[in-house]
Amino acid sequence: MAIKNLSARKIDERLAGLNQGLQTPWRVQNDKLNKEFLFQDFVAAFGFMTKAALVAESMNHHPEWFNVYNRVRVDLTTHEAGGISSRDFELARRMEVMAAA
Amino acid sequence: MAIKNLSARKIDERLAGLNQGLQTPWRVQNDKLNKEFLFQDFVAAFGFMTKAALVAESMNHHPEWFNVYNRVRVDLTTHEAGGISSRDFELARRMEVMAAA
Repeated sequence: MAIKNLSARKIDERLAGLNQGLQTPWRVQNDKLNKEFLFQDFVAAFGFMTKAALVAESMNHHPEWFNVYNRVRVDLTTHEAGGISSRDFELARRMEVMAAA
Repeated sequence: MAIKNLSARKIDERLAGLNQGLQTPWRVQNDKLNKEFLFQDFVAAFGFMTKAALVAESMNHHPEWFNVYNRVRVDLTTHEAGGISSRDFELARRMEVMAAA
């Protein structure tokens, strides 16, 4: 079953839900679901990435991400849908759980 | 002991040595030692990153890097030296060993 991109209105709705209670919100940037995570140091940042990598692989849905030292910038999009899909929100949600653990 | 950045001439010399026998060479881009590694898939790419992360942490010298699926773009610089130092070449050399393993 093909995965579909979400309408702007749906994205706004899902963003509001995702960002509830978060200090640093996700936002849409360049048609991708974007957030920069800050950790204590490189070990914490890469620890997060390792957990997220296992989840991403199991979802067969992979992030675009940039890391330098304690910063991890994440961009989520669904190439086959040509935009942001529910998979991006699911990965974002799971990343939040992992970042908080 | 403060780490010093390398002169343009030294960088050229070290680059020639580093790139010997490599299919895809390192180059200097925006005053950083740059290379894009291509792997078979995400597992291979992130496996490389995991090995490189352990080495980087042990060197206390961390890369700037971007990953999407099977691609890992690496930029190396030494902030305290304000440019490229011998540490960047050492990390690049060790990354090549890990990428080939």
